[in-house]
Amino acid sequence: MNKAKIAIFGASGYSGEELVKRLAEHPLVELGCLTSRQYAGKKASEVFAWVGNQSPLRNLEFIEPGAGSLDTLGIDFAFLALPHGVAFEFAVPLLERGIKVIDLSADFRVKDAEVYKRFYKHEHRAPELLKKSVYGLPEVYRDEIRGAELVACPGCYPTSILLPLLPVVRAKMIRLSSIIVNSLSGVSGAGRKADADLLFVECHESARPYGLPFHRHLSEIEQEIANAAEEKVLIQFAPHLIPLNRGIITTVHADPVIELNVDSLQAVYETAYRSDRFIRLLGSSRYPDVKNVAFTNGAQIAWRIDSRTGRVILMSAIDNLVKGAAGQAIQCFNIMNAWDEGIGLGS
Amino acid sequence: MNKAKIAIFGASGYSGEELVKRLAEHPLVELGCLTSRQYAGKKASEVFAWVGNQSPLRNLEFIEPGAGSLDTLGIDFAFLALPHGVAFEFAVPLLERGIKVIDLSADFRVKDAEVYKRFYKHEHRAPELLKKSVYGLPEVYRDEIRGAELVACPGCYPTSILLPLLPVVRAKMIRLSSIIVNSLSGVSGAGRKADADLLFVECHESARPYGLPFHRHLSEIEQEIANAAEEKVLIQFAPHLIPLNRGIITTVHADPVIELNVDSLQAVYETAYRSDRFIRLLGSSRYPDVKNVAFTNGAQIAWRIDSRTGRVILMSAIDNLVKGAAGQAIQCFNIMNAWDEGIGLGS
Amino acid sequence: MNKAKIAIFGASGYSGEELVKRLAEHPLVELGCLTSRQYAGKKASEVFAWVGNQSPLRNLEFIEPGAGSLDTLGIDFAFLALPHGVAFEFAVPLLERGIKVIDLSADFRVKDAEVYKRFYKHEHRAPELLKKSVYGLPEVYRDEIRGAELVACPGCYPTSILLPLLPVVRAKMIRLSSIIVNSLSGVSGAGRKADADLLFVECHESARPYGLPFHRHLSEIEQEIANAAEEKVLIQFAPHLIPLNRGIITTVHADPVIELNVDSLQAVYETAYRSDRFIRLLGSSRYPDVKNVAFTNGAQIAWRIDSRTGRVILMSAIDNLVKGAAGQAIQCFNIMNAWDEGIGLGS
Amino acid sequence: MNKAKIAIFGASGYSGEELVKRLAEHPLVELGCLTSRQYAGKKASEVFAWVGNQSPLRNLEFIEPGAGSLDTLGIDFAFLALPHGVAFEFAVPLLERGIKVIDLSADFRVKDAEVYKRFYKHEHRAPELLKKSVYGLPEVYRDEIRGAELVACPGCYPTSILLPLLPVVRAKMIRLSSIIVNSLSGVSGAGRKADADLLFVECHESARPYGLPFHRHLSEIEQEIANAAEEKVLIQFAPHLIPLNRGIITTVHADPVIELNVDSLQAVYETAYRSDRFIRLLGSSRYPDVKNVAFTNGAQIAWRIDSRTGRVILMSAIDNLVKGAAGQAIQCFNIMNAWDEGIGLGS
Repeated sequence: MNKAKIAIFGASGYSGEELVKRLAEHPLVELGCLTSRQYAGKKASEVFAWVGNQSPLRNLEFIEPGAGSLDTLGIDFAFLALPHGVAFEFAVPLLERGIKVIDLSADFRVKDAEVYKRFYKHEHRAPELLKKSVYGLPEVYRDEIRGAELVACPGCYPTSILLPLLPVVRAKMIRLSSIIVNSLSGVSGAGRKADADLLFVECHESARPYGLPFHRHLSEIEQEIANAAEEKVLIQFAPHLIPLNRGIITTVHADPVIELNVDSLQAVYETAYRSDRFIRLLGSSRYPDVKNVAFTNGAQIAWRIDSRTGRVILMSAIDNLVKGAAGQAIQCFNIMNAWDEGIGLGS
Repeated sequence: MNKAKIAIFGASGYSGEELVKRLAEHPLVELGCLTSRQYAGKKASEVFAWVGNQSPLRNLEFIEPGAGSLDTLGIDFAFLALPHGVAFEFAVPLLERGIKVIDLSADFRVKDAEVYKRFYKHEHRAPELLKKSVYGLPEVYRDEIRGAELVACPGCYPTSILLPLLPVVRAKMIRLSSIIVNSLSGVSGAGRKADADLLFVECHESARPYGLPFHRHLSEIEQEIANAAEEKVLIQFAPHLIPLNRGIITTVHADPVIELNVDSLQAVYETAYRSDRFIRLLGSSRYPDVKNVAFTNGAQIAWRIDSRTGRVILMSAIDNLVKGAAGQAIQCFNIMNAWDEGIGLGS
Repeated sequence: MNKAKIAIFGASGYSGEELVKRLAEHPLVELGCLTSRQYAGKKASEVFAWVGNQSPLRNLEFIEPGAGSLDTLGIDFAFLALPHGVAFEFAVPLLERGIKVIDLSADFRVKDAEVYKRFYKHEHRAPELLKKSVYGLPEVYRDEIRGAELVACPGCYPTSILLPLLPVVRAKMIRLSSIIVNSLSGVSGAGRKADADLLFVECHESARPYGLPFHRHLSEIEQEIANAAEEKVLIQFAPHLIPLNRGIITTVHADPVIELNVDSLQAVYETAYRSDRFIRLLGSSRYPDVKNVAFTNGAQIAWRIDSRTGRVILMSAIDNLVKGAAGQAIQCFNIMNAWDEGIGLGS
Repeated sequence: MNKAKIAIFGASGYSGEELVKRLAEHPLVELGCLTSRQYAGKKASEVFAWVGNQSPLRNLEFIEPGAGSLDTLGIDFAFLALPHGVAFEFAVPLLERGIKVIDLSADFRVKDAEVYKRFYKHEHRAPELLKKSVYGLPEVYRDEIRGAELVACPGCYPTSILLPLLPVVRAKMIRLSSIIVNSLSGVSGAGRKADADLLFVECHESARPYGLPFHRHLSEIEQEIANAAEEKVLIQFAPHLIPLNRGIITTVHADPVIELNVDSLQAVYETAYRSDRFIRLLGSSRYPDVKNVAFTNGAQIAWRIDSRTGRVILMSAIDNLVKGAAGQAIQCFNIMNAWDEGIGLGS
């Protein structure tokens, strides 16, 4: 198979760095270019202290971001690990040059530019691309990803929420208005910004809800649940920051609308994820734990029926930087190339 | 004022140790006796590495637990930091000797011995005391605690859940069947037991739900909510273990049954907790954080109304070993003595 | 006893905050004033989320720093928790107004302005005060502190290093040139600055040496060892950053110059620290641990003789924000007032 | 190339689990057998919560340890991740069956059975194998490992200490008797045992020296330094436990015996490690950090000359479970098979 030549934009953030680490080991990838405003002119080995003495990364130099600077490099794919509101500026000229784009920001996840504006508080500047973009959740959109030129990878919270919810929503098992989602996120989810609230001393021996009830990720969560349900929906979502480097735990409560038991849930999940190697069904006796998916592209899913209240309880665990960001992006990339989707991602 | 002479049973667990630390500094306490099966015969300074060279604790010796061994000591109060199912054995003979008992276990919290048995899986062995015991939540039962001989201090989860919920339940603001509680607990909540699941490596960079949906603390939570509501209730409760030494965050969602806004919630809380110095109302813009109550007897409470879904969101933070255990027990002890309830607890 | 009215400069840093917490509970203190450039105009309850609803701190307002703004307040003592290079600007006018100064910065620790300049890379701007200032290590300079107008509290590393070393240096037990010091510090030692290297994700699951071999604290360490030894000395010092909120562990190796055993060390320490309640001698079988001194003003000291190599090994543990900063400052303050030196510091 | 069929003994400890994870992904390995007394009869997917739904590990069953049970399996290599004192029991019959043994315990590291007994407090039960065994540090014994039947992988501390020290010892740059080693280890170094001292709450916000000055790893450290120096040596070693899951930082001080500067050190290291891809030389301005080698087989080495004291300072960082255990074992295994030594280990 031919190698693909790739560029990583915003390679010095946490998601960008995770992309660099994993793509440098991907057997079918040639790393053509890393961009970073902050580190332009520096070698990867100067920026990333983990780069080995004999790594091919060693002498790769960071350059200023900009589609033009890629013109002589023969890039096939660009991964954008940029802030929302910045990614769409780069996507347009990259796509015009025939470079396929895998975007990790929020800029192309929400199909409705009005919804985007309501949640992200600025105008969408490339609304014409929204129709083109495919939501990069392989367990749902594998076929669409295969032929896509622009893939918008889901956020970390949405991944952890949609994977347990979509099968039961599609099966019309739960009352949509009853869905209540609580999530716990490690601190890398907030990105690598020098913010006093994210200092070690402020996060260690700390735990706190934040950003509720109107978190930006609700825009894509509600869009995807609505697609699965074929009706509009509002989701209740409470995110919390906990002292982990990486990982998200999500716990969902909902009321069933049909007679349910743990076996019917098992059947629905097995059917939904039959061909999805990264989904790990834990059933109705084990619990998800971020430590069991850390540094992997796996997603654990468990469920319970509360025999007293009748409610359904869904739980999941992912690594926010892998299945919630870089790993999922690579999974999409493999699919776009019609390769085995697990290449470079372990088993 | 006369000092009270006290005994601490089970003084080597996390709650017991916290009691020792704080009662050793309490200006109106004489520490008469510490018990521990494991450490009988050892001095406090050998068991607790934090004991100072000139501390009065220094030469206090641990003894075997047993009411008889207190007979010559003139003990006025016994704090029981023992496992549930063990505490009632000691409470009976202590009370017979005229010693007042402040129990930190679950044994006297649930008024109905049948409910106790259903949740704790063994018979209650001192059901005649259940009528006598007072639930040691000063913000609710201050008057009853004042005259009590046996106080059953609430569990850590119940404290963090009841404090934000009771005022809105009493005010009949929310639909009881809609209450969904998510809590995050630090690891000291599981006690000092050499269990492989609680090893550093198993808990650090780990986060996990556990013990849902039928956690033992539900028995007292439902009892107290039912008392406030004047009707029976089933509560949905999802506890999680997160990598903190101490602290609990609770987030509650519920549907309002009357027109509500953040100001009416503020008014209800201000009225409910007007004379409660340890309650810290954060209102509708700030968030609770365990780091802001760690090592204090404070409880933070915050609230929101979700303008999209209409739901009420209540949040709280406590230190599970202080307001959730030892601090609350000392607060009750002060009240039983008709002293300022904050003595030995900071402000 | 009359209360002392105090001002805290730089009250929003980690040491400043620790001072506020502890002085607010000090029974002989009236908190007259908190300063902070960043928070001037805000109430303490807005800046510190741990302030209780009924705390006397509640409505105390931060003001801009400046000696002039204290003129109408009747301040007796000023605690300076300011960066080095800033503290001396404030000390001069405060002292001129008859306000006693307890400085937590490095500005008055080093008696020789040339040494100060060599280590801190700027001129000393109040060298005339250096003769006046007393090094605020009560275990060594208690008498001098009693009468002082300006106390320069030791740094956190120096405290953890001098306490185990000074007695054996004074007893001329070890070869000075053989002293090798390794220290491990929690992250609060670096202060509350929004520096990307101090982000949670950068410090958690991280451990690293830094700032060796020429750390600024060496200036005061060498000064004090030289004073004790009555000769000049160069110390080898390797600091490390480890993922703790608070605490310092120091391990010292040195060659003995006389026949030594663990008992002669015990005797030297017992003599040296006979009247020092915060020193906790662990002897030659137990080990210091930061968790046993955290949130206390205690300092643990342990020692060994290596029977194979003959070397002496000294170990210590302190809380860098308490015995290494705010607690020590309050201990000095109590001494300056001729009060019991432990008031407000636990036992 | 033909695959090798392997057995992992003691597969449920931390080092054993790391071996399973990595060897399951090794392209030239067939996992023939996992042993564990505790888990015999269980599937890998029941024991390891991280096993993916489609992993080849899924249905591999743990069996009781015992060479006999391997007879029908056609095993080529056995990895022993067993406690010291247990490993030699298994090595003898395995070797008799022609199975090559890679031992991660201490049982075959020390060539002198008397030294073994002095440090490990029991007789060596297979002293005849000591001549046969090769110390599994590829950077030193690559040629001997290639032809070995029995490889004794170094301990985690020794790896972190020998890698920076051996080149300068061989070059006779430092006075051997002046070597002082301080190391900081994450908690996984203590193994997965349900010991109350290793509970989360006892290790989090804790840091402590331990096991000094006579740590068992000194036996192999001194053996290897003596081999390099061609003379006997006693090493000063102070280990510390810090709140990390994984990683070791080592800081060494020593007196030079010849004129040295950072460039001559650089030259010595470059020569020594020219062909060692896992060694990462950081030079004289950067610092090692465990986070930059975590989950990799890399070892960072940095050095300084203290211009004031003249001493040499060497620093290193490794992941104790990878370069300090499982990764190094796999590196040896690759070498024994005459394969690229980095297969399955990243770059």
